[in-house]
Amino acid sequence: MGNTLLLPEIAELLRKKKFDFLREFISEMHEKEAADYLSSLSPSDIWKILNLFDAHKRADVFSYMDMDVQVKMISGGLKRHVLDLLTPMSTDDRADLFQHLDKHVADKLLTYLPSRERADVLHLTSYEEGTAGALMSSDFVALHENDTVASAIKTIRKIAPGKETVYYTYILNDSGVLLGFLSLRKLILSKPQVLVREIMKTDVIVVAATDDQEKASNLINDYDLIAIPVVNSDNKMLGIITYDDAIDIIREEQTEDMERLMAISGPVEEKPYLDIGILTHFRKRVVWVVILGFFGILTGMIIQGFQKTLETLIVLTFYMPLLNAAGGNTGSQSATVVLRSLALDQLKPGDIFRVLKKEFVISALLALCLGIITFLRVHLLTAPDQIGAEFTLLSVATVIALALSIQVVWSTLFGAIIPIIAVKVKIDPAVFSSPALSTIVDMGGVVIYFSIAKMILGI
Amino acid sequence: MGNTLLLPEIAELLRKKKFDFLREFISEMHEKEAADYLSSLSPSDIWKILNLFDAHKRADVFSYMDMDVQVKMISGGLKRHVLDLLTPMSTDDRADLFQHLDKHVADKLLTYLPSRERADVLHLTSYEEGTAGALMSSDFVALHENDTVASAIKTIRKIAPGKETVYYTYILNDSGVLLGFLSLRKLILSKPQVLVREIMKTDVIVVAATDDQEKASNLINDYDLIAIPVVNSDNKMLGIITYDDAIDIIREEQTEDMERLMAISGPVEEKPYLDIGILTHFRKRVVWVVILGFFGILTGMIIQGFQKTLETLIVLTFYMPLLNAAGGNTGSQSATVVLRSLALDQLKPGDIFRVLKKEFVISALLALCLGIITFLRVHLLTAPDQIGAEFTLLSVATVIALALSIQVVWSTLFGAIIPIIAVKVKIDPAVFSSPALSTIVDMGGVVIYFSIAKMILGI
Repeated sequence: MGNTLLLPEIAELLRKKKFDFLREFISEMHEKEAADYLSSLSPSDIWKILNLFDAHKRADVFSYMDMDVQVKMISGGLKRHVLDLLTPMSTDDRADLFQHLDKHVADKLLTYLPSRERADVLHLTSYEEGTAGALMSSDFVALHENDTVASAIKTIRKIAPGKETVYYTYILNDSGVLLGFLSLRKLILSKPQVLVREIMKTDVIVVAATDDQEKASNLINDYDLIAIPVVNSDNKMLGIITYDDAIDIIREEQTEDMERLMAISGPVEEKPYLDIGILTHFRKRVVWVVILGFFGILTGMIIQGFQKTLETLIVLTFYMPLLNAAGGNTGSQSATVVLRSLALDQLKPGDIFRVLKKEFVISALLALCLGIITFLRVHLLTAPDQIGAEFTLLSVATVIALALSIQVVWSTLFGAIIPIIAVKVKIDPAVFSSPALSTIVDMGGVVIYFSIAKMILGI
Repeated sequence: MGNTLLLPEIAELLRKKKFDFLREFISEMHEKEAADYLSSLSPSDIWKILNLFDAHKRADVFSYMDMDVQVKMISGGLKRHVLDLLTPMSTDDRADLFQHLDKHVADKLLTYLPSRERADVLHLTSYEEGTAGALMSSDFVALHENDTVASAIKTIRKIAPGKETVYYTYILNDSGVLLGFLSLRKLILSKPQVLVREIMKTDVIVVAATDDQEKASNLINDYDLIAIPVVNSDNKMLGIITYDDAIDIIREEQTEDMERLMAISGPVEEKPYLDIGILTHFRKRVVWVVILGFFGILTGMIIQGFQKTLETLIVLTFYMPLLNAAGGNTGSQSATVVLRSLALDQLKPGDIFRVLKKEFVISALLALCLGIITFLRVHLLTAPDQIGAEFTLLSVATVIALALSIQVVWSTLFGAIIPIIAVKVKIDPAVFSSPALSTIVDMGGVVIYFSIAKMILGI
């Protein structure tokens, strides 16, 4: 999404080739603002303006642009400009960009990259999408265990501009094993001649490169970290994930959870709604709409099996929407609450019986409310000619209210248990959507409804 | 949620009064871990252990405890201990705690607090819940415009332990107006004798104290900030909000959005699922279950109005679940996508016609898919004796498939438009839940279904 407010001015300055003024004008902006403005220009104009800046500013502004703009610029830029841009980029942003380039563009660029950068890209892109390794940056400040505070601060001064964060520094031994960490706060508070290993914190919270990215973001959140180190199985330090990446993960996972919950399939799109093609939108929705459509047809076939019951007592049809709504709503509610608690690590699969006990009582109360309302509604407001002479209003009202109450209890328990079982068998609990849940509890509800009618009324 | 793994050991150490060993043992833990362990003990045991630590460690561990444990401890602690604990706490955590105390406990404590801390609590608690002001901390590093880099670093060294973050410093003039900011990174890279106002960034991203807290968290996220300054209408600096608070807000707002979306009412509970009372769970769910139950009954009454149609062609009943599922699912999908895009600022209410155009095409494609499947299913798989001699299979299949298609299109458009209208009339778009949507489109669907049957089949 480009910002367009000052675009005419920028285009005018470009046309008149007032480059000094342009550099001045954009230098004063935050990199993100600059990126927003530039994104609306053509790739060649963006290149013209980017090349006015020094290497770091250029890379920073570029990194704030949307991925599709970045890809377009790299794919169409001059080799020399592209390499000048890629070298100073944050290692995680650069690796991410390579993941999005056409394979042959990426391969060609890799051969031109300096060997250190090439190795870095190859390493960072080797981790599976969604792992901590795929997200990490290799730009962290590493200190040696024998460094003093004075030499540590000197190191930081020297390398600060190229590093993701200088606020946390990591102390490694000769083999690169992580021994401890020190915050810049602690460093500037300590005496210059002290050794860093004497004041470092050794109880470091880490993630493994193969861990899920969500684990990293949860730890950053729980421990209020600015960055978390990523290590391999030998505790060698590979990189860091910073708090701003954690925020992005939390947002992305949340969008994914919501989409799953609403039966929208596939990976979360990075592009905004209006930029996503109609066919992509369609593809993400049609899968579940059709699958659940078949379930709807199946429920209809169950009703068909009770055709005689239905023809004998047509009034039963009038309460099918209520039954359907009550089951879907209570099931979705319990599923949402349990799902969210699992996502926030407030619940473990082992709590299943405590959850079921709790949900049973809650659903019994809900069933009681709805059951009484329904019983009164049927009993007091049904015209006697609506039901055949062979039935009493009391028995019909009892059947409908009882079926509804059972439906509420079973739907609530079903909604609560499904996410927990999903976690136990290690599938994403959010995969089971609220529409799927509603459709399935509706199917069960129809069976309950007509079975009870058959039993009590003998039809 | 207390951590219980090492609890027997801790209890044993307490019983044997091995306080030195206990202090050693817990000092090595991260404050959050220590808080998790201690939370499972009785308040008096927690007090015994907390009082082993120095003021800052004690306050840090305490701040990581759940709010209900904090409240219990403050309400039951000795006045001397309580005051020793409250004084060094982070100002935002302390203000938050006061918001949760019983009014008379809070008032009594306030009178005992040193005047500086009392004024701070009174100021921070004066902002309305949900605003940036209510969330901010007053612990920030303020520099004067005439300070040099050397004196700035000296200031930071002196006050660092008590400040929320020292990584960003703010430069104020004599009246406390915010002039610019400097990162600690920049400070340690600059020459000692330079004035801070010469190197500070003047293009500071700020929020007003009365702005919504979500605005602050969005800015922190968009600009990758560690902290954002909070100012009043005269641009005087009042406090900061840090990135870890932004993460908490994002999570809380997400839980709220999800609960709204699933028809769970009321404010988000801070306590984990298992700690929330059954009646609270019940209250949060019953409202919508009953309201939507009434809508379900209303839908039944509409069906009742078409009783003759239904009795003439009972096969129509068998496709009601399909109609219901298709409407609810497609409506929920479009609502979710639009809602999420609004929340991420990817859509503005002004885009309403572009959204409708897009959703119309998507829904037409979905309707086509489902319509064809349904037409074939009815036409090919319905036994001729299921329908009266006065109708042809072709006409019945057309009615059902057509009604379904219209239902899909109108549900999708309805789902997309509702969140946008909500934003336009300035109510929370997530207030309109997916179950409410399903129930309402179902009502419309029933009308569409039977009206089309009436028109085409003349019943």
